[in-house]
Amino acid sequence: MTGDSAYRQAGVDYDVLDAAKRAALAQALATSPLLERRGGRALDASRGQPAFVFELGATRLAFVVEGLGTKSIIARQYEELTGESRFDAVAYDTVAAIVNDLCCVGAAPLVVNAYFATGSGDWYAGERADRLRDGWRRACEAAGATWGGGESPTLPGLVDPAEIELAGAAVGVVPEGIEPILGQDLAAGDEIVFVASSGLHANGASLARKIASGLPEGLLTEIPGGRRFGEALLDPSIVYAELVARVLAAGAGVTYLSHVTGHGMLKLMRTGSPLTYRIGALPPVPPVLTFLAEQAGMSDREAYTTLNMGAGMAVYCRPGQGGAVVREASALGLDALVAGTVEEGPRRVVIEPVDVVLEGEEMVLHLEDGS
Amino acid sequence: MTGDSAYRQAGVDYDVLDAAKRAALAQALATSPLLERRGGRALDASRGQPAFVFELGATRLAFVVEGLGTKSIIARQYEELTGESRFDAVAYDTVAAIVNDLCCVGAAPLVVNAYFATGSGDWYAGERADRLRDGWRRACEAAGATWGGGESPTLPGLVDPAEIELAGAAVGVVPEGIEPILGQDLAAGDEIVFVASSGLHANGASLARKIASGLPEGLLTEIPGGRRFGEALLDPSIVYAELVARVLAAGAGVTYLSHVTGHGMLKLMRTGSPLTYRIGALPPVPPVLTFLAEQAGMSDREAYTTLNMGAGMAVYCRPGQGGAVVREASALGLDALVAGTVEEGPRRVVIEPVDVVLEGEEMVLHLEDGS
Repeated sequence: MTGDSAYRQAGVDYDVLDAAKRAALAQALATSPLLERRGGRALDASRGQPAFVFELGATRLAFVVEGLGTKSIIARQYEELTGESRFDAVAYDTVAAIVNDLCCVGAAPLVVNAYFATGSGDWYAGERADRLRDGWRRACEAAGATWGGGESPTLPGLVDPAEIELAGAAVGVVPEGIEPILGQDLAAGDEIVFVASSGLHANGASLARKIASGLPEGLLTEIPGGRRFGEALLDPSIVYAELVARVLAAGAGVTYLSHVTGHGMLKLMRTGSPLTYRIGALPPVPPVLTFLAEQAGMSDREAYTTLNMGAGMAVYCRPGQGGAVVREASALGLDALVAGTVEEGPRRVVIEPVDVVLEGEEMVLHLEDGS
Repeated sequence: MTGDSAYRQAGVDYDVLDAAKRAALAQALATSPLLERRGGRALDASRGQPAFVFELGATRLAFVVEGLGTKSIIARQYEELTGESRFDAVAYDTVAAIVNDLCCVGAAPLVVNAYFATGSGDWYAGERADRLRDGWRRACEAAGATWGGGESPTLPGLVDPAEIELAGAAVGVVPEGIEPILGQDLAAGDEIVFVASSGLHANGASLARKIASGLPEGLLTEIPGGRRFGEALLDPSIVYAELVARVLAAGAGVTYLSHVTGHGMLKLMRTGSPLTYRIGALPPVPPVLTFLAEQAGMSDREAYTTLNMGAGMAVYCRPGQGGAVVREASALGLDALVAGTVEEGPRRVVIEPVDVVLEGEEMVLHLEDGS
């Protein structure tokens, strides 16, 4: 059995995957039976979701590898301009990118490992290496995860000698009594809660660098509110793992979780389900994102399909439960609002406050652009 | 509690770690208690070992992140010269590097995730992307592991646009009834079995490229035996995970496992134990390594502390058990020999056939060179 039918039988949302991802998935799916030799089982419906889920005996584990992208370049540029190292912030961002994906399937992070690749061993001279390690540890603490270890290769010829590439991996466990969240329970009537982002998070760094390079004062440009562009871009991401653990433990009827990253609100229809996501209220947009979108000449449609625009995580829950999710967020000091609902209808996202409609096929097109 | 005493109390072999690794370990150790909130426990004695080990209830899991280094550059160069894609081989090498580290603590690989970073999305055009995925899958199969998923970011400005950086992560389980292998049982009298490598494996690629660049015919140079240098360099690594699972299941009294990588036989004294490792017999050296060492003008000492020189994995076992390990290897088609013994004495490696003695402090010095 090959092609579409194998995916569908495995519960994979084939429609949302681009060609390269499909090819990798076909190879990966073929290896699923190997887990059974070790007393495990692959949950193939998790393929295409933000983390891979598998069983080992009665334990359900989640596993993810994720990278920061190119945001570390902004930290290097900002350090050169100001002498101020914010490598703690980008290390924090990296762990956040990893564990925020991991917790989307309902898993509590257990262990996070680091992958720091440089083009020259000289990178580690000076304070920034201390900042980097410090930020990584603090993000692990925020996620309630242990920093297990990692690898820090020097890769001349592969990685630019001035830069550091940040990535990592995490293992998590789905708490007993909770089903892994793979979109199976998402249904019309569910409420959608947006939890605030702190700014850029891990996505949009290449665009931000491009914009900065065209500004006379670059990353030192003052943005509305009085902060420097570079400083605001380097606000560390929010780690949502603890919030997810709390809303699951509170029985708030969570049916899906979407980490809003590189494709903005297109990620709201990450599952292939034929459902409409109607957004009636939006969170405040962080000034750095408003500035970035304006400078890039983006329409609302472009901005809301490229940046998180203030919504870092979407929590979907049973009708009437949105308020409980918002309260859990507030208890952790996170801003959140009941933003919309899931409806019967074609697969699309309707963002009423900005009059934007995103059709299902745009999700595929955007992924094919390479994220 | 900080510094040496914290490490020692945790069972970490502090003496073998360089300054940067110590700094990272100090931060990582501080996060160990977090696992207890999730019903787990960090095995801190695994810090500094090839994989991090932790308990979750009665299950002992191992977790590792590892990269290939720069060997993918050789595959790109060889493809440009010959039109022959060997990206399957370097993908295989990457999985081997990951799972061979993982199994050193006694773990059977469960799931392997990929991290493929390119400088340009164009990398994936053409046959090599298929080869890459195919090699990754085949290595997962050789390791008995499921390919869970992964991440394939395009990182302009960080990664060279012509190249692909290969890395990944794996989760494994230590079988019931077996203690994680962290060096605690290693003792005088133990036998050391060397299991053959297939050639370069994942370490020494930068040196090989340097040597090739100085040869008139470069990677197309004919080496003794008649093969091309580049072709031989790209022989895929051996995956030792199945062998390790077998010798553990057979009760062959395994006391330690050392994956012989970047520092060659210095890795034999990876634990900080005050023991002498006396090697009386060496495996045949693959022609590609003999050629590489000769062209580089290496002394035996340099060659045996830089390359694997034909020994890809060292299996330490109780007195009299070496033969059983060799038989298990033979059953899997792997060459192996009882190469030496562990003795009371200062921490050092004595390689009698080539009259080389490696002192304990060289292990630290070499790690400080940045591996």
